[in-house]
Amino acid sequence: MTRPITPVLDTVQYPADLRRLSDADLARCADEVRAETISAVSETGGHLGSSLGVVELTVAIHAVFNTPYDKLIWDVGHQCYPHKIVTGRRPRIRTLRQKGGLSGFTKRAESDYDPFGAAHSSTSISAALGFTMARELGEATGDAIAVIGDGSISAGMAYEALNNAGSEGRRLFVILNDNEMSIAPPVGAMSKYLSGLYENTPLHALKDIADGVARNLPAPLRAGAERARELVTGAHGSGTLFEHMGFDYIGPIDGHDMDQLLPVLRAAKARATGPVLIHCVTVKGKGYAPAEGADDCYHGVAKFDPKTGVQTKSKPNAPSYTAVFGTTLLAEAERDSRIVAVTAAMPGGTGLNVMQKAMPARVFDVGIAEQHAVTFSAALAAGGLKPFCAIYSSFLQRGYDQIVHDVALQNLPVRFCIDRAGLVGADGPTHAGAFDIGYLAALPNMTVMAAADEAELVHMMATMAAHDDGPIALRYPRGEGVGVALPERGDVLEIGKGRIVKTGSNLAILSFGAHLSEVLDAAAELEAKGISVTVADARFAKPLDIGLIDRLAEEHQALITVEQGAVGGFGAMVLHHLAASGRLDRGLAIRTLTLPDTFIDQASPADMYAEAGLTAGDIAGAGLSALGVATVDFETKNRA
Amino acid sequence: MTRPITPVLDTVQYPADLRRLSDADLARCADEVRAETISAVSETGGHLGSSLGVVELTVAIHAVFNTPYDKLIWDVGHQCYPHKIVTGRRPRIRTLRQKGGLSGFTKRAESDYDPFGAAHSSTSISAALGFTMARELGEATGDAIAVIGDGSISAGMAYEALNNAGSEGRRLFVILNDNEMSIAPPVGAMSKYLSGLYENTPLHALKDIADGVARNLPAPLRAGAERARELVTGAHGSGTLFEHMGFDYIGPIDGHDMDQLLPVLRAAKARATGPVLIHCVTVKGKGYAPAEGADDCYHGVAKFDPKTGVQTKSKPNAPSYTAVFGTTLLAEAERDSRIVAVTAAMPGGTGLNVMQKAMPARVFDVGIAEQHAVTFSAALAAGGLKPFCAIYSSFLQRGYDQIVHDVALQNLPVRFCIDRAGLVGADGPTHAGAFDIGYLAALPNMTVMAAADEAELVHMMATMAAHDDGPIALRYPRGEGVGVALPERGDVLEIGKGRIVKTGSNLAILSFGAHLSEVLDAAAELEAKGISVTVADARFAKPLDIGLIDRLAEEHQALITVEQGAVGGFGAMVLHHLAASGRLDRGLAIRTLTLPDTFIDQASPADMYAEAGLTAGDIAGAGLSALGVATVDFETKNRA
Repeated sequence: MTRPITPVLDTVQYPADLRRLSDADLARCADEVRAETISAVSETGGHLGSSLGVVELTVAIHAVFNTPYDKLIWDVGHQCYPHKIVTGRRPRIRTLRQKGGLSGFTKRAESDYDPFGAAHSSTSISAALGFTMARELGEATGDAIAVIGDGSISAGMAYEALNNAGSEGRRLFVILNDNEMSIAPPVGAMSKYLSGLYENTPLHALKDIADGVARNLPAPLRAGAERARELVTGAHGSGTLFEHMGFDYIGPIDGHDMDQLLPVLRAAKARATGPVLIHCVTVKGKGYAPAEGADDCYHGVAKFDPKTGVQTKSKPNAPSYTAVFGTTLLAEAERDSRIVAVTAAMPGGTGLNVMQKAMPARVFDVGIAEQHAVTFSAALAAGGLKPFCAIYSSFLQRGYDQIVHDVALQNLPVRFCIDRAGLVGADGPTHAGAFDIGYLAALPNMTVMAAADEAELVHMMATMAAHDDGPIALRYPRGEGVGVALPERGDVLEIGKGRIVKTGSNLAILSFGAHLSEVLDAAAELEAKGISVTVADARFAKPLDIGLIDRLAEEHQALITVEQGAVGGFGAMVLHHLAASGRLDRGLAIRTLTLPDTFIDQASPADMYAEAGLTAGDIAGAGLSALGVATVDFETKNRA
Repeated sequence: MTRPITPVLDTVQYPADLRRLSDADLARCADEVRAETISAVSETGGHLGSSLGVVELTVAIHAVFNTPYDKLIWDVGHQCYPHKIVTGRRPRIRTLRQKGGLSGFTKRAESDYDPFGAAHSSTSISAALGFTMARELGEATGDAIAVIGDGSISAGMAYEALNNAGSEGRRLFVILNDNEMSIAPPVGAMSKYLSGLYENTPLHALKDIADGVARNLPAPLRAGAERARELVTGAHGSGTLFEHMGFDYIGPIDGHDMDQLLPVLRAAKARATGPVLIHCVTVKGKGYAPAEGADDCYHGVAKFDPKTGVQTKSKPNAPSYTAVFGTTLLAEAERDSRIVAVTAAMPGGTGLNVMQKAMPARVFDVGIAEQHAVTFSAALAAGGLKPFCAIYSSFLQRGYDQIVHDVALQNLPVRFCIDRAGLVGADGPTHAGAFDIGYLAALPNMTVMAAADEAELVHMMATMAAHDDGPIALRYPRGEGVGVALPERGDVLEIGKGRIVKTGSNLAILSFGAHLSEVLDAAAELEAKGISVTVADARFAKPLDIGLIDRLAEEHQALITVEQGAVGGFGAMVLHHLAASGRLDRGLAIRTLTLPDTFIDQASPADMYAEAGLTAGDIAGAGLSALGVATVDFETKNRA
């Protein structure tokens, strides 16, 4: 593939090189960074649209501020490809999101230019304030600059941080990257408020801040300043939302126009004495027609042809869990008018867009607001509805107290639909769904299920729809199912009962969730060695099927549990039971296979599970070790 | 003790009775509710100040709205004593916060008038929106009214809910109970914004909402309405913060004046078509001089003499863990200038007020904002400081994703100081610190400690101060220590090493945390029966002292683990290790004593632990059961 021609960018390895360029060359450099970004992502796939939206901003910030002494913090971090290109990582940019390559997000371990990693939303202002207060207390760090999108700033956490930063009153920069579109079309009143601001305001205008930044601006900008102030604040000025919070407000400005960005950033840097919010309007996917034309399909892209924008997605072998979830939920909702659904700004990612399209009044997209999403769901349940609250495993961590305090304690029948459970591939450790089994199974009143395959997902959703006695959670992984036939309609499963998948006599493997196919492969490996293996699917981590567990323990020489989650989860619940029942007193060769005690870097899910020690071979090995005898013994014994 | 004379209140059992009273009698009734509240809390202790602040609001809301068909939701719920008095619970009001008595918070299981329980802050608007949307989808429920304090509304979760409610645009009422003082003096820019509103606005003025509520008000109120609007919004009106969010705004009004409350609530009820925010200014502790005069010491009070306000606190036998924490942190901070502290609106409750007073610039009270508090702490650490982030166990659940994503994943040395670990007494199940061991020990890079007594707390704080390699957490309970001598200065403990407290030969009990004294009592009981007991203090749930665990397992007939936490925590980590090492293959009589799989209602901590099955007798019983033989066998054996 031909690489773009980038004469200016070729002179830039680090931001210090940008600071030697003229403004005109900086603008040229930005164009070349854009071309390089498109070229790289066409090879790797990734978050193209958000990166293209901040190309000029990236070049301008690094040209004006003294990174890495000044701390530049990208909220979410998925827009960081241009940033990586100009901070010493261009040589590796075509390894983005690949095994052993650059992370698709900012990452402290990767570069000094990434002072605070991210991937989840809305942490950047908190981080910027932390660096700022460290500086105020004498640590050797410069200005902190948070760049945050209009979707991310609507989360409660960002509001908490703005509030605190406004109150502290120290010099700090928040750049609002307002592209009117986070992952899905933005929702919520905050989003309306932002649109109101720039619809009524010429982009070339600039409100003067503090003691008169405008006076130091080039003439064309200075002219519009006073009028902009009036438009944004009202003539007698009760101020913008950000001013209410104690920020000086500059903007809105055109985030793709270096002639606005550079002077505004320079003025802000020269004059700010307290917290400043700079409002930049940008276009997601800017400068690449296929991305600008797309809605959210260029948020995360596969490899593509840079000429046409056509993505080269491999043909799936089976529908994804997410897709099965989406269509099944709609089917359940058609049968039961009390079913409603809740998402925190991820209708597409969760598959709720299917139901949203068919019955928009019954799907609530509450914005990036997981805490609210959970408690809102609890009250929907208290009000008589059957809420399905669909949040990825790692994001559900944001609503944990609400699950405990509002759902479990009140025993309200909220259905948690937990996609992206287990290791997720290219998004890496920040998106791994590792902890939900444990943090949910510890809660009184909670029922915890995991789907072994996409047919099980359908049955479990029917089970959730029927379960009105309290909260119930269902976890399932990212990606394709295993290709089993889907039932016309799901069966309502008996709560707390697992199933025997395959009967043997030497070793029992008790699987919880989507690792069942790997477990079956392990069983086949072992049987090839003459070991007779029972495979069971626990279905429930809570309540446990203790009858099944006791039987497996009694009738086999060893018992292995397998789950796509961390310690303290399913295996731990099995061990607690066996200890309490006294079964361990007599000796039981039991092994609990879980995710290891490390965060695992991005790779394919299969490679990540290999890294985690959870391949079929690993499981078979654990079985052999638990049996504690050479294979030949079993062959002899079974023959006898 | 003489009871107050309450002729009007005596005619009121349920809110329907209020609706039969004249406005004048409602005002009298409110006075009597106040007297009854003071009288009841003088006998029980509890949250007096917040309850006295909402007496008139309580009577007025129940008189105007059709509760329980209309859903009244008190944020936090600690101001609910007047509400309980007028909703059928007056006969039991003197059992508040006692074992078997009324909860100190709203609670669904207790009354239909408590449609959504609370205790943690800032959930009420989410809950109100949930009921509202259930109504919009046809469920039989009326208007939802959330009453939320100025402190609570500053939390991110409340902002998320306001944002979503404003966007949905449905009829719903939020009453802002603005008393300028949540638990501690309020912090943050939002608090400044609120003060600005009412400092500049006459309380008797009222801004008209929607299609002209003001026109329906009595003349004295009507007069000030237009002027109030101008003052609150600016003459050309860019609107209040709440209007930006899509709410109609009424206020500020005097929340103790029934002549303002009743007409405003009636007008709002009659005319509202979308979300409405009613801003009431109240005084915490209103109408009881000792409470009005106090700062936060009447937030939660002990029993007191209603005539003088003097509280009758029992003399402590030992300093509280909280107090030891507070003084020790100050001492560590005096030795190390990089130590800073972070609290989420609880400087007094956490003991950080000691350091705050001595070195205010190094203590950050970020407001009710646990998500931000954790990420802010992470960045303080990234910036070179040594943050001690002090948050109660149950509230730390609010920052769980931030612990995972910003702290553990980045391996930043944030020190989590987790007070109120385990069962907490009168505050009941909402405040129990049950889950932190499991949800923290599952995280890579995390170190998890628990203090067995107050001297251990001092050593562990020294250990935290010295630990720069990654995040470290320390849990300790509410209440008094055990009275051990405190070291002049803490020792830095070896990470991942426990200690033998007492050596025996038959049974080993491995304790994690503050249940050690109970474990020692259990050991004494068993020794009286001739069983020789080793007692060990694990100190660390992560990393485990596997050498110690293996030795205990080898050298005793049985092993018991004990912790003040739920399943999936310390005992589970011990079991995982013993399973992985193959030690269980050979048989091990092990029992893991944890909190049970239920939420335990309020009582004294001792009674709650009895309910939990964690008394010395229970532990001794588990030991006997694990040993699996009659006591006499041991006596015989030991004699032999």
